[in-house]
Amino acid sequence: MPEHTAASRLRLSGLCFLLQILNILLFAAFVRYSPGGSPGPCPPQLNCSRRSPASAFQQPRFQDAHIQVLLSFGLLVAFLSRYGPGSAASSILVTAFAIQWALLIQGFFYFFLNGKIYVEAQSLVSADFCTAAVLISSGAVLGRVSPGQMLLLALLEVSLCTLSEYILLGLMAVSDSGRSLTVHTFGAYFGLAVSRVLQQPHKDKRKREEQRDKGQQTDVFAVVGTIYLWIFWPSFTSSTTAHHNAENWAVLNTYFSLVASTVATFILSPLLYEESTPRMVQIQDATLAVMAMMGMAGEMLATPFGALIAGFLVGLISPLGSRFFTPLLHSRLKIQDTCGVHNTHGLPGVLGALLGTLLTLLATADTYGYSSPLEGITQSQEPVASSPKPVPSVACRLELVFPLVAQGSRTVPEQALMQLGALPLTLLLAALGGSLTGAVLKIRVPRCCRDAQYKENAAFREVPEEGS
Amino acid sequence: MPEHTAASRLRLSGLCFLLQILNILLFAAFVRYSPGGSPGPCPPQLNCSRRSPASAFQQPRFQDAHIQVLLSFGLLVAFLSRYGPGSAASSILVTAFAIQWALLIQGFFYFFLNGKIYVEAQSLVSADFCTAAVLISSGAVLGRVSPGQMLLLALLEVSLCTLSEYILLGLMAVSDSGRSLTVHTFGAYFGLAVSRVLQQPHKDKRKREEQRDKGQQTDVFAVVGTIYLWIFWPSFTSSTTAHHNAENWAVLNTYFSLVASTVATFILSPLLYEESTPRMVQIQDATLAVMAMMGMAGEMLATPFGALIAGFLVGLISPLGSRFFTPLLHSRLKIQDTCGVHNTHGLPGVLGALLGTLLTLLATADTYGYSSPLEGITQSQEPVASSPKPVPSVACRLELVFPLVAQGSRTVPEQALMQLGALPLTLLLAALGGSLTGAVLKIRVPRCCRDAQYKENAAFREVPEEGS
Amino acid sequence: MPEHTAASRLRLSGLCFLLQILNILLFAAFVRYSPGGSPGPCPPQLNCSRRSPASAFQQPRFQDAHIQVLLSFGLLVAFLSRYGPGSAASSILVTAFAIQWALLIQGFFYFFLNGKIYVEAQSLVSADFCTAAVLISSGAVLGRVSPGQMLLLALLEVSLCTLSEYILLGLMAVSDSGRSLTVHTFGAYFGLAVSRVLQQPHKDKRKREEQRDKGQQTDVFAVVGTIYLWIFWPSFTSSTTAHHNAENWAVLNTYFSLVASTVATFILSPLLYEESTPRMVQIQDATLAVMAMMGMAGEMLATPFGALIAGFLVGLISPLGSRFFTPLLHSRLKIQDTCGVHNTHGLPGVLGALLGTLLTLLATADTYGYSSPLEGITQSQEPVASSPKPVPSVACRLELVFPLVAQGSRTVPEQALMQLGALPLTLLLAALGGSLTGAVLKIRVPRCCRDAQYKENAAFREVPEEGS
Repeated sequence: MPEHTAASRLRLSGLCFLLQILNILLFAAFVRYSPGGSPGPCPPQLNCSRRSPASAFQQPRFQDAHIQVLLSFGLLVAFLSRYGPGSAASSILVTAFAIQWALLIQGFFYFFLNGKIYVEAQSLVSADFCTAAVLISSGAVLGRVSPGQMLLLALLEVSLCTLSEYILLGLMAVSDSGRSLTVHTFGAYFGLAVSRVLQQPHKDKRKREEQRDKGQQTDVFAVVGTIYLWIFWPSFTSSTTAHHNAENWAVLNTYFSLVASTVATFILSPLLYEESTPRMVQIQDATLAVMAMMGMAGEMLATPFGALIAGFLVGLISPLGSRFFTPLLHSRLKIQDTCGVHNTHGLPGVLGALLGTLLTLLATADTYGYSSPLEGITQSQEPVASSPKPVPSVACRLELVFPLVAQGSRTVPEQALMQLGALPLTLLLAALGGSLTGAVLKIRVPRCCRDAQYKENAAFREVPEEGS
Repeated sequence: MPEHTAASRLRLSGLCFLLQILNILLFAAFVRYSPGGSPGPCPPQLNCSRRSPASAFQQPRFQDAHIQVLLSFGLLVAFLSRYGPGSAASSILVTAFAIQWALLIQGFFYFFLNGKIYVEAQSLVSADFCTAAVLISSGAVLGRVSPGQMLLLALLEVSLCTLSEYILLGLMAVSDSGRSLTVHTFGAYFGLAVSRVLQQPHKDKRKREEQRDKGQQTDVFAVVGTIYLWIFWPSFTSSTTAHHNAENWAVLNTYFSLVASTVATFILSPLLYEESTPRMVQIQDATLAVMAMMGMAGEMLATPFGALIAGFLVGLISPLGSRFFTPLLHSRLKIQDTCGVHNTHGLPGVLGALLGTLLTLLATADTYGYSSPLEGITQSQEPVASSPKPVPSVACRLELVFPLVAQGSRTVPEQALMQLGALPLTLLLAALGGSLTGAVLKIRVPRCCRDAQYKENAAFREVPEEGS
Repeated sequence: MPEHTAASRLRLSGLCFLLQILNILLFAAFVRYSPGGSPGPCPPQLNCSRRSPASAFQQPRFQDAHIQVLLSFGLLVAFLSRYGPGSAASSILVTAFAIQWALLIQGFFYFFLNGKIYVEAQSLVSADFCTAAVLISSGAVLGRVSPGQMLLLALLEVSLCTLSEYILLGLMAVSDSGRSLTVHTFGAYFGLAVSRVLQQPHKDKRKREEQRDKGQQTDVFAVVGTIYLWIFWPSFTSSTTAHHNAENWAVLNTYFSLVASTVATFILSPLLYEESTPRMVQIQDATLAVMAMMGMAGEMLATPFGALIAGFLVGLISPLGSRFFTPLLHSRLKIQDTCGVHNTHGLPGVLGALLGTLLTLLATADTYGYSSPLEGITQSQEPVASSPKPVPSVACRLELVFPLVAQGSRTVPEQALMQLGALPLTLLLAALGGSLTGAVLKIRVPRCCRDAQYKENAAFREVPEEGS
């Protein structure tokens, strides 16, 4: 290997060292454990009415916190199926760094009190949402940036993602429990914007062809990835919905959408490609697309057939996008999308936001809250035996999904407008942030070293291909 | 590819489309969420005494509901090790369709009230049991039917499986919490009956030989599949046992059987095959066999050594069946069994039913209920602190496993007779239903297209073999 | 194959049969289910104050019990990445046997009452800890002992491991919830001692070279293994900490260490090896090392940055050990270490014990218990709604981590001395026990059959290599 590569290896090593030391120092200065697992101090500008009941039964949160990390790894496994084990190492590096950094940045935004950030299991969940966005973005540029550039991307994107989350969830009080917008849409379009800026016309095209179809290996990862997603993602989608019953619906809604979307894949696949059954990667894409779409709508959809229809549509639209829109993206807009994040996260996220707006318009105390009186009766009849859960469990569903609407401080159309307005805002933030990040990544590599840099990437990337 | 194949591809696409639209329409007409997670309305002919305490602490049910789907995928992974990733796509299609269909059919049987089916997490669990039966059946005919035929098989089997479940669990009040009979035995013999009807003498034999020994790939799937089963299936076996303590025993019993069965595999393997250690596929088969056997007996076995003995015996019988009985099945009865479901589900299910009958005969309030007074005392001494669980947790174990016996409306020998009588009934229903389904699948493929159909299957099947 | 091999195959079969029958007889004579899931009878010489609150909310224990078995399998998967699927079969055999044997041996030590051993889910967790130690030890000698020898190793090591656990946790009241000492350190040095005794100078060297770098296959297992560990091990580390809040910290501490250690791997890898990014196996090793280190310290570390620093250091030390110390071990001490257990379990375990001692010295009611008054207030204000957990949840953290210190019967320096003294004691027991076991394994193979034995191992070992 040429000396350029040796230098860049040491550069990565040094960068990791600096960033980790920085993290340790910042943690030492600011981060403390939330005392005794009690509800963390919460600044008044946040919708804390929603988080406080959650802290009352934290046992399930724990399990969720474990599972969140898997979420990131679910993504990782998903990308593995497209890109082989060689991508795993750098993705894990990004995950490890982004979790720490997100805890810090989110701490400064949300949990900063008396000069300290108090973390608890819930903080880790939030940090992992951010990490997921970074992993989605990295999916768009995988194989074309070095691990060092990935770290810089994570550094910048975590900050911007937290900012967007703060504006949407904190200031605008948008209901987006599964993070259709702040994770999936933001992550995908951020990554695409970075990809656009970093684009190298004549070289990338060749690369792109050769990294398709890794054969058998790919299928194994796609099978494992799909199973991971089916098992754990429904509970992930519902992990931030505080209320027991609402969680119930979010899980069921996600399942119904999943199965409908899977069947839809089998409908389109024989039409679009000359295959009698879809490949596992396509089924995995349909699974991811459903997850992105149901993030916002999951806790809203009040009927099972609504979930079926939503899943069915996204299962049809996502492969169509992959077939007809991705080539357009590539040829017209010069945007490359290594792992197809636009069809699995971006487009479904946008659809999810539109669906969420529609469902918000339909939200009345009637559709959401009719369970409340019934439960109240059950509650009063068997006061001890049937309620191992805390009292908040009898609260109106509407109050949990749209607290401001339930309190009367906002009308349903206003809330719907907020939900709709969040979409262009997210797209704008993602596009601007991504372009900015792409520009920074470009600056970092001086013109002269570009070619060496490129070789390094190639060397990095080609490790898995030797064995296959 | 010939035009026949193109036509059949479109046929699959159209079939999926029709079935999914049908599902959506039926869901729209009938299925609603159970209001507020409260205990679903329950028709009086069912043993609801058993289900009602379950709805009191639904938090664990949630986790189970997630895990159930994995059960199906566990099976799927198990089949992967025999059949390669090419089988995954069609199995996932069957799973996605069967879950929806089972929710509908089971809803009509169980939860139909005022013209609506009210679904909750528990419904998904029941639907998944049915889906597991379909997957087991499909294991017997994998590679010899097209995905379209699989869908038809699922369509018919779900209905018959629900009918059999209704008769056994609803009308006869048989105790079969892990579904040894209604899932494992029914699924296996249903699949074998279908296989018998669809059998094509001169062609299948050749196929059967070549799909053995996929080498390294196979081992990877078998390792992953075995680990999946070890981790998640014990909790699956116990997921329908309502009572906390009974659940405890079911999990422990399943574990003890598992370890004994695994050791038994190592005893027989060097004798039956010329290998010093069994291959992972054999260990996986032993794991599956234990699961099928302990379905009924899991919550009954009151001693750890009983579980060890049961596991040890099934670990010896299952490989013996695989070695000596499967060739007989094939040569005499002309029944092919692609994934060996007879030895891993059918035979152990029958053994499990016999074991369950034996244990029912031994059931007295003495063996099951002696924990009750002790717990009652604990309960009264520390009324609040030590009982985060609802009051039903002090009920007698006997009441939970055999509610009718505990209520005095049925004697122990009567219950044992019911348990025993359920076995031939299940076999009869499975054989009749399977033959019927096989006949329908045969009709659907006109004689003239048989050969093209077969080629299609071959093309479908050979996708994974290219890469290996 | 020669006749020696056939004989040895039958010997393994017979050994399995004898051991399983022995287990069944012992289980029949001694083991009973703990009545009704109530807290098991507990001999007074144990620190039962710690176990009794745990039995109050056993629901999470269940999940843990499932996950424990996976722990063993996590290890197994970890070893797979070094050794290929051929090692899986014998590891599963060892697991299946060791769980039964550990239940018996630990039962005699801890739960023996009125001539019976009463088992519950918690017993299975303890048994699985022991099994983990056996699997760690087997990692040091994998590929150089036959499955039969592995069984003997398990037979002896389980007894010695339980003895060491009894001395450390029972008699000395050392706080080691994640078992840095009794599982990781003991298992690693036990295995190394066995390896030293069994060492065969001229033959092993050649073997060792050829079993490196299995290529692509290896990477798949390493990716899956790393993901498994990330998902499940943090909850494993905290599974024996009884207190809800303490558990919280243990999980978070483990996560923080994990991410820091992963970044550290990326720092060292380019310096030590000529690779731009570490291979997945190295990341997996870092993950394992963190787990071993945080076992004891996990529930003690009271600040997030402490966890970061600890993880960072172990992430640096472990690869350095692998690079510079393992060759020394091999060349000077003639100790082979097939799967590198010294760097992933032994050394980090020792570091963990030292860190635990340091943290014990810093333990005051101030750092551990300052959450108590705050929680007490919350408790009194909302007596029913906010406390679905039993009352012990308001107890002082200190009491849970160091019960004797909290009760005043031991001072902090005394406790620290105990923690420190446990380290040389563990090393001594492991070294003596391992040497003894190695000697027994050597005796069992008479001089004359040595060569045949060796061939058998080779045949056993080479199964996976055929396919690769």
